[in-house]
Parts: sequence; structure tokens; C-alpha cells
Amino acid sequence: MAPVSLPEEFRRIAEHFKPLAGQGALDLTDDAAVFTPPPGRELVIAADAMVAGVHFLPDDPPDLVARKLLRTNLSDLAAMGATPLGYLMTVSVPKSTPDAWFAGFAQGLAADQAEYTISLLGGDTTSTSGPVSLSLTILGTVLPGQALRRNGARPGDGIWVTGTIGDGALGLLAAQGHIPDPEGYLAGRYRLPQPRLALATRLHGIAHAAMDVSDGLVQDLGHLCRESGVAAEILAADIPLSPAARAANRLDLCLTGGDDYELLLAVPPDRDAALAAAARAAGIAVARIGTFLPGPPDVTVHAHDGSVLPLVRGGWSHFA
Amino acid sequence: MAPVSLPEEFRRIAEHFKPLAGQGALDLTDDAAVFTPPPGRELVIAADAMVAGVHFLPDDPPDLVARKLLRTNLSDLAAMGATPLGYLMTVSVPKSTPDAWFAGFAQGLAADQAEYTISLLGGDTTSTSGPVSLSLTILGTVLPGQALRRNGARPGDGIWVTGTIGDGALGLLAAQGHIPDPEGYLAGRYRLPQPRLALATRLHGIAHAAMDVSDGLVQDLGHLCRESGVAAEILAADIPLSPAARAANRLDLCLTGGDDYELLLAVPPDRDAALAAAARAAGIAVARIGTFLPGPPDVTVHAHDGSVLPLVRGGWSHFA
Repeated sequence: MAPVSLPEEFRRIAEHFKPLAGQGALDLTDDAAVFTPPPGRELVIAADAMVAGVHFLPDDPPDLVARKLLRTNLSDLAAMGATPLGYLMTVSVPKSTPDAWFAGFAQGLAADQAEYTISLLGGDTTSTSGPVSLSLTILGTVLPGQALRRNGARPGDGIWVTGTIGDGALGLLAAQGHIPDPEGYLAGRYRLPQPRLALATRLHGIAHAAMDVSDGLVQDLGHLCRESGVAAEILAADIPLSPAARAANRLDLCLTGGDDYELLLAVPPDRDAALAAAARAAGIAVARIGTFLPGPPDVTVHAHDGSVLPLVRGGWSHFA
Repeated sequence: MAPVSLPEEFRRIAEHFKPLAGQGALDLTDDAAVFTPPPGRELVIAADAMVAGVHFLPDDPPDLVARKLLRTNLSDLAAMGATPLGYLMTVSVPKSTPDAWFAGFAQGLAADQAEYTISLLGGDTTSTSGPVSLSLTILGTVLPGQALRRNGARPGDGIWVTGTIGDGALGLLAAQGHIPDPEGYLAGRYRLPQPRLALATRLHGIAHAAMDVSDGLVQDLGHLCRESGVAAEILAADIPLSPAARAANRLDLCLTGGDDYELLLAVPPDRDAALAAAARAAGIAVARIGTFLPGPPDVTVHAHDGSVLPLVRGGWSHFA
């Protein structure tokens, strides 16, 4: 007789992940989740991966790793103006990973599930001979036809961003001890992005186009230009910087570094007041940094003295 | 002026993955996919990861790696009796990965997209310092209330499996050169699973419970027993083996090895004829290997001489 064993993998799922399972997840006991999509809404779905040593530091606290994984994906929903629903996740870790890592990881997920009113729908846990490798698929919903897209920017639209730009890239340097960060503010911004959902869900009828800034402001603005068939001109002096980023004095990195997870918006001038009201209601700062123009999809950055900044590298790519 | 660069990562996505994008994927240009779920159906969703050196061999052809990734997930949909809809995928590979690998990988996806009438909805490509690490989220649909579950087996139900058992585990040994495989049949079974969707979508009203066998017959049968609150007794002599598996003479491995991706079903005796008809219609063989019984969730395997086989290890776990 073979007593039905509960090997480590399944014990871990039962202990750490089952408490996170939401409606439709069937307590993670079946091969898949089953749920009825909210009637009268479109589904919005995205997937992002995170690898130790690439997207987070190998010794980052596991609860913050989990929250960053969830939040980078939530930021994709924000970019579409969608409301979060739930997520699936695959976790590949070295066999030596201690149980405490899983406990901390699950704690981080639980904290953000409460904050964003979402739940775990399913996933998979496997071993790897390499670094911790995570993948998350986020589901959200939006009213039919109201998803924000990248292809709607028009010449004359203002270029807006939320929050402050550059903290994520500077935060990586700070977390690695390369630049001072006495308050830990920059490292905190690197480790715990703030998806701008509260504003994003108010942007229908206000923004012509939207995306999140994850690979560097100039590169991502370039993507938006290419999809919309417009050019962009931004003023370095108008890019909102945190006091810590201002002190770091690394404008180059603020323009091209990744990990901002702020929103980049195209807003026609006649919607400026509506944008300001939405930002106030959401409690999220917005700043106009430039203008979309007719022309080929180029991004021009004007320095404080009006000269054009030469940028050798548009932003972060995993293979460039 | 910063010309809008198209770094390697985005060129690869545009060249290899964009042709695979389906309706709702927005040509992979936005932060997420947007689609209207089929009306009157429930959504079924699952995610599985695959890591080189764990789930496939590092030098396996990339088209077969892609198809195995897709098919292991399709097998989860089959386990639920669902019809496939689309998928999202994250791909983490070493920076040195040649373009030909991506081309082959995309070719494999294209082949199976045609075979299973599905399309790519979104995903992410990143670098890793470790082995190739893949994650896929599959979406499917089912009529409300008709999803097959693991918790419905009742005492007296027959235990049935599709196809043949053990080829996957033996195929890994064969692919590694540890056992002979003159026709390449076993290695082929390891590298290219056959999700039993054609049968699965005909099992409503026939099977009380279902799951796919991915971590070893005995262990997975144990999961089904635990979820249903029943015991299971199977006869080794009745387990369907391929001629190649029979020749390998490794019953232990056939009982406990992973990578079968066959269906395991609980079918009441009065539905035997309906099961046979469904199997005929689907062109998929089914075999009865035992019976569910009242009692604690134990799995007993009777040897050819009627004695009880001692199994030290129920099946494959990533951390046991």
C-alpha cells in the first residue's frame, strides 16, 4: 500500500499559497481555476516575468519581491485603465530555498491582495538550478471600448507623467550601495513600485493614450510615439524629480533608467482641467513634461538651457 | 535627438512573436491584451512553468520545447474538460541565446496554435543568468457548471486512463541515452505530450472526476483520492503500456514517473458504454485500471500475482 504522500511541493502550496486563493481558484486543488467573467466587461490580461539578479536583488526581502512582482503587473493594468481581478503565478526556485522565504513571499502577496482587492487564481511551483525566476499573469476588467491604448496620441496633446521619474533606476544604484540614500527612499522606490490604478481608472475620456514607464522614460515614450505615429518633445526641467533624485543629480539615468512604473499619458489641452480633477480625486500627482508633435516617431529632450540633449541609449532592454 | 531605437528585445518580439498574436492581443504593442470573453461560458485558466534541465533537456530542439510548454498547459485544460482559447507566455533566456532559437521556438508555437486553434495574447521576454525559464498561462472556456473536477470520485467508480502510461518518464531516460529507444518513440513521448482535449470535452455527464497525470500515476491518483475522500485500488497488469514501455520492463517507473499528460478519470460503471463511445469518437484509447473504494485516501497497487506492490515513492515532486 502506498500511503498518499504530501511531498514538500504540495505541502508548501497548501501552507503558503492556499490561504491566498480566491473565488474560482478551487483552493488550488484542481488543474485550473474556473470563474464567471464579470458580465458586461472586457477582460484585460498581461504577464510579466522577474528574475533574481535582473529585476530584483538576490537578497531582497521575499515579501518585497512578491509585492514588486504583483505591482509591476498591476502597473500594466493601470496602463490600460483596467480594474484588477486576480492573478496566476509560477515560482521557480533553487531546491535549497528555505521555507521562511516562501512564508515571507506569501506574506507580501497577502498584503497586496488586501491593498488591491485581488486574489490568487492558480499557478505552479518548480525547482531551478538558476536564480529565482518568477512569472505572473494579471487579470483585470474594463468597460467595453474604454481600455486605454498606446496608439491614440495626437499632435498637440500634452505629455504627462504621474509621480516622479528616475527613482527606480537610482534606487537600484542605492540598494547596491553605489550612491547615498540616507532615508532609504530611492531603494524603497526600486523595491516597491506604486501602480497608479486609482488615477488610471478615471482616465477614460481624458487621456488619448497611456502606457506605464517601465523601461525608461525616453524609450517608453518612443514606443508610444511609434504606435501613435507622432513625435515627442520634452523639457528636462519639467520632468518631476523627487528630492532624493534631485540630490543624486543623474538626469541621464532619470531619462533612460527603468523601474519607474509611473503612467505616461497623452492628454489634449482641453482636458487639462479634467486631468487635474482626476489626479486630485486619486491623490496622485501629475506633471506635464512636453508635447506630442506631427512627424516621425522621434523623442527630443531639451536641456535646461534649451539645447537638445544627446542620448546614446534610449532605455533598458534585456538584450541590447 | 534620440532616434526611437528598437532594441533586440523588441525586435525579437516583433519578428518572432507578433505573427502569433491573436484577436485581443493588440499586436503585442500595448501593456495588456483586451478581449470580450465568450458569452455564456465560464473561463478556465491555468499556469505552468518549465525550466531547462528540469522539465526539458537543455539541448532539446526549441520548437519541441515550445510545443511541450503549450501542451502541458493544454493538458490542464483537458483535465477540466475545457476548450482552449489563448495563452500568455513569459520567456527568460541567457543573453547569448541565438536568434535561431527564438525562430525555432516561435515555429513550434505556430504549429500548435494551428493544431489547437489558439493564439498568443501577450507576455514578456527577459534575460536570465540561469537556464531557460518558461512560464505559460492558458485560457479556456467551459459551459457553466460543466468543468471536470478532482473531487467527484465515488466508491464503485472505475479508475480509467487514456493512452499509455510511463512513456514520458522512460522517454527522459531514453533521451539521455540511459535506455535503448531504437524507434525514438519514448523520447518523442517525453518531448511532445498529447493533451487529450478531444476526449475531455466529451466527458460531461460521463466522468465523476478527472485530472491529468503529470507527476506520476500513483501520486496523482493519490491527489484525486484525497480531494474526493476515497481510496483507490489498481491492477498493475491492467495499466496500458506501449510496446516500447513493455520492452523497457520498468513498471516501477511507469507507476511513479512523471510527464505522462494522460487523463485519469473516475467513471461510474453505468457510464462505461458512454465512455467507450466518447473515446471512439475522439479517437483516443481508454483503459480501466482499477476501482475507487470507500476508505482513507490510499492507493494500493496489486502486482500481476495479486500481491501488493510496495512503492517507496509516490511520484515526482520538485522538492521532496
